[in-house]
Amino acid sequence: MALMEISVVPLGTGSTSLSKYVAQIVRILQEEGFSYTLTDMGTIIEGPVEQLFHLARRLHEAPFTAGVKRVYTSIKIDDRRDKKVHLGEKVKSVEGKLV
Amino acid sequence: MALMEISVVPLGTGSTSLSKYVAQIVRILQEEGFSYTLTDMGTIIEGPVEQLFHLARRLHEAPFTAGVKRVYTSIKIDDRRDKKVHLGEKVKSVEGKLV
Amino acid sequence: MALMEISVVPLGTGSTSLSKYVAQIVRILQEEGFSYTLTDMGTIIEGPVEQLFHLARRLHEAPFTAGVKRVYTSIKIDDRRDKKVHLGEKVKSVEGKLV
Amino acid sequence: MALMEISVVPLGTGSTSLSKYVAQIVRILQEEGFSYTLTDMGTIIEGPVEQLFHLARRLHEAPFTAGVKRVYTSIKIDDRRDKKVHLGEKVKSVEGKLV
Repeated sequence: MALMEISVVPLGTGSTSLSKYVAQIVRILQEEGFSYTLTDMGTIIEGPVEQLFHLARRLHEAPFTAGVKRVYTSIKIDDRRDKKVHLGEKVKSVEGKLV
Repeated sequence: MALMEISVVPLGTGSTSLSKYVAQIVRILQEEGFSYTLTDMGTIIEGPVEQLFHLARRLHEAPFTAGVKRVYTSIKIDDRRDKKVHLGEKVKSVEGKLV
Repeated sequence: MALMEISVVPLGTGSTSLSKYVAQIVRILQEEGFSYTLTDMGTIIEGPVEQLFHLARRLHEAPFTAGVKRVYTSIKIDDRRDKKVHLGEKVKSVEGKLV
Repeated sequence: MALMEISVVPLGTGSTSLSKYVAQIVRILQEEGFSYTLTDMGTIIEGPVEQLFHLARRLHEAPFTAGVKRVYTSIKIDDRRDKKVHLGEKVKSVEGKLV
């Protein structure tokens, strides 16, 4: 399991609001059954790394289906092979060190 | 108010664990009194944009004080001047569109 | 055609030098026949967007085959459907505005 | 000396073209006398790390002075304290390993 953070930003829409495009992405994640955390700066998703790349491809495509002409997608993947990684564990590990 | 997401990654430490460096950053945020959300892929902080840049500088420096020789810092700033932005509001706006 | 910038950062290697991992990535790009530009902060690659996602998956995997245990990959994709985009054109367009 | 890659993306402009905003940033870099490399995905700048953070702040502000209402800025800083880093050296180091 790896973690991916993705933000899909449509350009040239004429509006400063992006929330309808983010909602479109969340609907895809729910349909596909991925575990995810929505944050103010992107969406963090847990899954096998091959599936995450396929998913990223699909999420990147979503705004084009809504008529957008240019999309700027940022992705970060954190992939460990020395231990299993799940959503929420990194935050817990840091909090354990703060006590 | 703007939002900043920051991740400060030390390189060449010989360990795959980064949580002690993230804990160091969270301690600085608590000392400085910023509102923040810790996620699995970074830390999201709310503040006036000038203060966020000063803070980013300080967070980037932290691992060097712990003996690290190379630091790779990623920052994203989302800054709107047409409305006030606070932590949690973008997530709420998306959730409102999903009902 | 879209443009992708990718940086693949191995963590926990105990060395501050990353150039051998970048060289590994460049060799894959040459084998696969993609047009690319190597920069000091990543590699920019031109291609059909489906192929770029497959390539990103392969480049992300490369350091694991060299024994690395944790890899942190950052990807940006800039994809326009209103005009064809090729390597070097965005730079030329900016330079045209600076004269 | 550290290296910074920055991309400053205006949102809600109604145009898919960003080159005039990038040109504005290049003019600031020229005025300030920084060494930089313009790429298709951002601008890479060399300088003392304190100066790079100040500069990032100024570049982020530029589109607002041109009437933009929302700006999304991405920054990566690669900062080594075990050796001096200059523009072009990382690329040369990789190329040396490819021969």
